[in-house]
Amino acid sequence: MREVAIIGIGETKFGELWDRSFRDIGIEAGLKAINDAKITSNDINALYIGTMASGSLIKQEHVSPILLDYAGLSSDHIPSIRIEAGEASGALAFHQAYLAVASGYYNIVVVGGAEKLTDVSEDVARDITSSTSDQEWETFFGVTQASQYALIANKHMNTYNTKREAMAEVAVKNHYHGSMNSTAHFQNKITVEAVLKSPPVSTPLGMLDCAPLSDGAATVILAPLDIARKFTDTPIKIQASTISTDTATLFHRRDICTFDSTILASKKAYDLAGIGSSQLDLVELNDNYTISEIIAIEDLNITKKGEAGKELLNGRYRIGDKPSINTSGGLKAHGQPYGAVGIAQIVEIVKQLTGRAEKRTVNGAEIGLTHTIGGIGSVSVINILKRVN
Amino acid sequence: MREVAIIGIGETKFGELWDRSFRDIGIEAGLKAINDAKITSNDINALYIGTMASGSLIKQEHVSPILLDYAGLSSDHIPSIRIEAGEASGALAFHQAYLAVASGYYNIVVVGGAEKLTDVSEDVARDITSSTSDQEWETFFGVTQASQYALIANKHMNTYNTKREAMAEVAVKNHYHGSMNSTAHFQNKITVEAVLKSPPVSTPLGMLDCAPLSDGAATVILAPLDIARKFTDTPIKIQASTISTDTATLFHRRDICTFDSTILASKKAYDLAGIGSSQLDLVELNDNYTISEIIAIEDLNITKKGEAGKELLNGRYRIGDKPSINTSGGLKAHGQPYGAVGIAQIVEIVKQLTGRAEKRTVNGAEIGLTHTIGGIGSVSVINILKRVN
Repeated sequence: MREVAIIGIGETKFGELWDRSFRDIGIEAGLKAINDAKITSNDINALYIGTMASGSLIKQEHVSPILLDYAGLSSDHIPSIRIEAGEASGALAFHQAYLAVASGYYNIVVVGGAEKLTDVSEDVARDITSSTSDQEWETFFGVTQASQYALIANKHMNTYNTKREAMAEVAVKNHYHGSMNSTAHFQNKITVEAVLKSPPVSTPLGMLDCAPLSDGAATVILAPLDIARKFTDTPIKIQASTISTDTATLFHRRDICTFDSTILASKKAYDLAGIGSSQLDLVELNDNYTISEIIAIEDLNITKKGEAGKELLNGRYRIGDKPSINTSGGLKAHGQPYGAVGIAQIVEIVKQLTGRAEKRTVNGAEIGLTHTIGGIGSVSVINILKRVN
Repeated sequence: MREVAIIGIGETKFGELWDRSFRDIGIEAGLKAINDAKITSNDINALYIGTMASGSLIKQEHVSPILLDYAGLSSDHIPSIRIEAGEASGALAFHQAYLAVASGYYNIVVVGGAEKLTDVSEDVARDITSSTSDQEWETFFGVTQASQYALIANKHMNTYNTKREAMAEVAVKNHYHGSMNSTAHFQNKITVEAVLKSPPVSTPLGMLDCAPLSDGAATVILAPLDIARKFTDTPIKIQASTISTDTATLFHRRDICTFDSTILASKKAYDLAGIGSSQLDLVELNDNYTISEIIAIEDLNITKKGEAGKELLNGRYRIGDKPSINTSGGLKAHGQPYGAVGIAQIVEIVKQLTGRAEKRTVNGAEIGLTHTIGGIGSVSVINILKRVN
């Protein structure tokens, strides 16, 4: 298999983009990435698209040829492939595109993720979110994603003596990071007190423990490493790209405070990249609920199980720490347009490694990891990216 | 890239399977294929699933971990990836799985397609079908897929003097083939007169010119060719697997009687396989409407443009002819469970090449081609399969 690099990135602002359609934002991110990579339409061999629920959200299946068409690329008749993996749709599209370039079948591939969540009512959006969990065995009985994460949070607090304030600290840190990110959905700083006093969603989780539903799109361009320098002076090498799965249902798990898919995918990725978690400078990980970040830090082996809360209360993982976690603002502040999330996480690492992360730049960073989840840990996608010196 | 072979197949009956769920049929086809390939769960490296509209049809996104879970495979935590490309979802899942094995990343991969179309009302099913065309530019104004194919049929009749009876002959031939296929949705023979007298859907197309909406699932197992003989004495080699796209909208096309995506994907496939269309023994092609088969025969370069109707009226393409077309019964008689169609076409070729096609076996056949379409020719997927002697 060939080595593969990222040679361009693009993204829209994340937020409530009511004046623009799914197509508009998909194309905006795509064209920005194409411009960034300084490629033309003739260079592009294929398009991979990650989106979770376009059929339910905008009554449009088969978005792959439509985005190609709308981008003015249909006359080239290039392959266009949609991947769906719940909230990890973008991350899994990236993984498939990586395999396609690594295999030698394609050279230059565009990978985009997009979702438009704020044009439907919150009820509809909640039902669609629940449709990534097991409808027959769990969702049908009324459980929501928030209430399942609340169960996890209660169990984690009970088992590891994790403090409520540690969860709040996740939101505070990520909003602080988002305040330095001009594409973030939320760019306001918040306090631990505000999180603790926010309206309850499912106890112990309050409104400020939950990532928003957002509109947004993000795109990256892939190329074989050996030709990447033709396009950019700062190619970012993909050291590893891995997936692991788990049951869709929570009640079948051996331990709801641990996502085995994250443990297994990250172990494989560390092996492939030949590094340990202590070498990571940057991590963009799943914080759709504040408890999720705590679990992810532990499952990625950044701390021992049960220790992440304490580390957070000690002020760890802010910009400049090793690793700096969710410097983009994470799903909590940067935003959560499902299909775009996995690509946006990669865009953030590339921005950091190429010195384009505005005031939140982590100096000297060389290695970053992205961690994207679909369902409640039923799929985890890990990518390890490295600056090529 | 490595050479890849098919080492096992499985499918459900196609039809109105009201006593079984999406999961039930997905698992039935999967386990049959696993048994056919004589592999165990330990051998499986990944699962690829093609399904078009599970979010709209059964309110379940993220079916990839759910099918894995339901099959009892979740404890292995293997990657599970869903691809969506409208009615070509299964075919595109196969293509991606092929790339993943060819790249060396995986060895044994299970590829399944499934759809459950008869548990919703016909109105809902029709709207979902239309969601694979461009909603903003065409469907919104009331056009349906049937009326667009009727436009194509009228234009083809006018331009090439194609006879109404030639279209009817497609349905008659494919029902004749389906009458010898125990998994077919329709196993009754029909006459040209019956097609011509069938209730109008969109003139000139009558009810018997239209493929049914079906429930069904199909699965194949892939392996690198060099280890395929460990599992089977009759591996079927994938000589080529290609995709091409076109505009989602019909009004943007240079010629609505030709699908450029089919022309381009098949040319590339013939080149990769080092064969011409005259060497094909078997072809499973898109006949969602009878006019579709005529266009596909021409676009695949099996005849010159405008000649397919005459050939059909001369009795060509029945079992035993070279090529024999839609020996399974095609979408018209074998059935049309969208996500499963592309895989079912491959299953039919494998059955034929391994002498398992019941009374419809084409003796001495060595090379087969599958042609699957998503939208109205907005994506075409071509696979060329060959018996390894």
